[in-house]
Amino acid sequence: MTEQASYHMTAAEFRQHGRAVVDWIADYMEKVESLPVLSQVQPGEIRAALPAAAPKQGEAFATMLADVDRLILPGITHWQSPNFFAYFPANASGPAILGELLSAGLGVQGMLWATSPACTELETHMLDWLVAMLDLPQKFLSTTNGGGVIQDSASSAVLCALLAARERATQFATNQQGCDGRLIVYTSSQTHSSLEKAAMIAGIGRAQIRLIDVDEHLAMQPASLAAAIEQDRAQGLIPCFVVASVGTTSSNAIDPVAAIGQICQAQGVWLHVDAAMAGTAALCPELRWIHAGVDLADSYCFNPHKWMFTNFDCDCFWVADRAALIGALSILPEYLRNQATESGAVIDYRDWQIPLGRRFRALKLWFVIRHYGVEGLRHHIRQHVALAQTFAAWVQADPNFEVAAPVPLNLVCFRHRGGDALNQQLMDQLNHSGQLYLTHTRLRGKLTLRMSIGQTHTTARHVVSAWQAIQTQAETLSAAAD
Amino acid sequence: MTEQASYHMTAAEFRQHGRAVVDWIADYMEKVESLPVLSQVQPGEIRAALPAAAPKQGEAFATMLADVDRLILPGITHWQSPNFFAYFPANASGPAILGELLSAGLGVQGMLWATSPACTELETHMLDWLVAMLDLPQKFLSTTNGGGVIQDSASSAVLCALLAARERATQFATNQQGCDGRLIVYTSSQTHSSLEKAAMIAGIGRAQIRLIDVDEHLAMQPASLAAAIEQDRAQGLIPCFVVASVGTTSSNAIDPVAAIGQICQAQGVWLHVDAAMAGTAALCPELRWIHAGVDLADSYCFNPHKWMFTNFDCDCFWVADRAALIGALSILPEYLRNQATESGAVIDYRDWQIPLGRRFRALKLWFVIRHYGVEGLRHHIRQHVALAQTFAAWVQADPNFEVAAPVPLNLVCFRHRGGDALNQQLMDQLNHSGQLYLTHTRLRGKLTLRMSIGQTHTTARHVVSAWQAIQTQAETLSAAAD
Repeated sequence: MTEQASYHMTAAEFRQHGRAVVDWIADYMEKVESLPVLSQVQPGEIRAALPAAAPKQGEAFATMLADVDRLILPGITHWQSPNFFAYFPANASGPAILGELLSAGLGVQGMLWATSPACTELETHMLDWLVAMLDLPQKFLSTTNGGGVIQDSASSAVLCALLAARERATQFATNQQGCDGRLIVYTSSQTHSSLEKAAMIAGIGRAQIRLIDVDEHLAMQPASLAAAIEQDRAQGLIPCFVVASVGTTSSNAIDPVAAIGQICQAQGVWLHVDAAMAGTAALCPELRWIHAGVDLADSYCFNPHKWMFTNFDCDCFWVADRAALIGALSILPEYLRNQATESGAVIDYRDWQIPLGRRFRALKLWFVIRHYGVEGLRHHIRQHVALAQTFAAWVQADPNFEVAAPVPLNLVCFRHRGGDALNQQLMDQLNHSGQLYLTHTRLRGKLTLRMSIGQTHTTARHVVSAWQAIQTQAETLSAAAD
Repeated sequence: MTEQASYHMTAAEFRQHGRAVVDWIADYMEKVESLPVLSQVQPGEIRAALPAAAPKQGEAFATMLADVDRLILPGITHWQSPNFFAYFPANASGPAILGELLSAGLGVQGMLWATSPACTELETHMLDWLVAMLDLPQKFLSTTNGGGVIQDSASSAVLCALLAARERATQFATNQQGCDGRLIVYTSSQTHSSLEKAAMIAGIGRAQIRLIDVDEHLAMQPASLAAAIEQDRAQGLIPCFVVASVGTTSSNAIDPVAAIGQICQAQGVWLHVDAAMAGTAALCPELRWIHAGVDLADSYCFNPHKWMFTNFDCDCFWVADRAALIGALSILPEYLRNQATESGAVIDYRDWQIPLGRRFRALKLWFVIRHYGVEGLRHHIRQHVALAQTFAAWVQADPNFEVAAPVPLNLVCFRHRGGDALNQQLMDQLNHSGQLYLTHTRLRGKLTLRMSIGQTHTTARHVVSAWQAIQTQAETLSAAAD
């Protein structure tokens, strides 16, 4: 084969192949409901079908796209299926996908304001819009001492918050000297494992995490928190960080943020509120009670990439004191110096996150908010919440099942009364059927099924079918057990 | 306005709007060369044109796309322009953009093998392909004790490597107890600031970073490294981590990895090799000398999102001992437990990275490698290197200019002999002209211009024009100074 002058895809070819991919995705949207939700492949099966080495010569785009159907699709667990009720939603939408496409096409690197001012300014602006949309405290606005930024995930947001808290508590000495074992962090025994990972990464250590007891609703007990902080302080330790959850991953438990916030303020401890999935609900005025007390938080995050129709990744993270965050994360090598940065008039988002580089993620958020409008977003959130409430009522009405935790929003924790083994079998068989996909947690030692309702195209008929399948499968299992 | 039954974009509308965005990007590819490379807007200018609040009702997609032209484009610094010579390349391509689009359309969450087996297995497979493509050591293959993973950036890769090194050095005690101030890390005085940020994040502290002297080529001096390690050990400290650069960001200096590796092996210190931009060159057998000694590294990364036609984010990161990495980053809450994970037969990439969630980034890498083929990738890398060598020769032949550092690959550090002020003015005026975009560094105290050649569509004529513009502008400035 003779060498070509260029191997790049031309603009004309891009038009042609781009249309093919757009049509592929539209076809996928139309057929995803009919595909088995949980991939049924065995470990190693996908790899075994791939060539052992990269091709020497280039291949036709049509071949590659056909291979997505042939080789990749069987290994996909369909998060975009309306029958996906596992983990948490990761609901994408047309405007989000097209915003992501545009971002890839522009290919800008948003590490500094100067490296693409629109990437930074649209992001700041969207995060300000969202403060109003969710009725978050004014101190999170970029026009105050605070401000917001897009992170890849709530895990990274809690790590950034922890670093800011660590440095505030030690007056930036930890960045210089390293940790010394005295910093203590607090969360409930139910809270997301992301704080455990963050405390490991930040050099604080697992032993310095205090897991605070929860009440009968699986929410943190403020009195226990206050006691733990006082005890640590009495021992010469430095309480520096509390994470409260608005909707734990496990059961959607909502911590009493107001009471926790008062303790944190009195003790001078940084309060981070993680509303990764549930935060989206605050778009609806009647659900804003979930944010009671957030005005006492030092930082807050929620994920449009979970329940706000924006494809991963897009976690929105705000701080009340951006100087603390920037002070914790800023470094300035010569090759990144520029006039705009030196002037102090701009935001350089590389100082608000772990990595240096960043994509133009605000575009998809802008597209989603404008496509739906606030009313459109509210409509779909309300539908999801109503479906979950209905599902919970069905569970409660069935003597063979029980609701296992409060259902404040769109997650129903429930179980068959037949015990752990039966629930495990029930879940495995439903998932293996491909008809729907459910996952589990363990609440007070008992295996508990989680029905998470929030995928873009999930409607009443999908929830009805799911409940029928659950009941039917449970009857078969119970009969076999008798 | 009456409430609609659904506010979602239908599949049919997605086809229509998707085509419009594909055409928009193709048009952008065709015109980007004619746009001013560095955005000329002032701080706040983009935001000032945006509505103060989110729309209540949804808007038409065509309006949004028109607003990208009207409101966003003036604030874009065109990284995809063939006249972009600043920082480092971030070269996207048609197949990469379409891979990203497909990934957004599938909308899978790849945190666990079980949450989409193809997402994990294609990634493992691509990273194995790349071991062969770059002739990296076999110990990085997933079929050994090692393996590769896609990170968002080289900054995150170095942080993950540091955490693995930290835990290996302390037998996982730091994850439990936190840092205690005795861990020491090493890199050259020229190396990327990402290690400084990682050491801060990891609780090790800036004071525990030893910046090792460089030689006349700005490469680390192994004897100084050995002396520093011995001195720290003699004081009861714990040397745990060395970062060697194959191509520093500042000047593309290449550290003597083989000599550094021998010291690290003798001392039992983790060696991480950062080849963020330069690593791509190893696709070409005649440039593989840059990887001499990488067989002694514990971890290695390079960024296809810099110089391998893959849009951000896509950093490829390998470790020789994946147990060390997983041990440093793994946590397992109940709600993520599943049979595949318990069986030990699969990779769960959430344990190889900072965040929990992850996109299906291997798709774009697969598309890029298959579209170009190894020969196509080599062709374009060779062209960029040749252009940089030619540019360096022009600089050397001009008595008013000098080459300021060795030019091993595609970055030329150079300066006008007229001093810092003249070079600063020269750069500012060139950038302000919009004709090209250059950035600077400081080498041995002197302001130095950086000509980074690696954008997808940069060809000889763009480099010729750039050099003409540089010479012309310099003559004007020199004349004005006389």
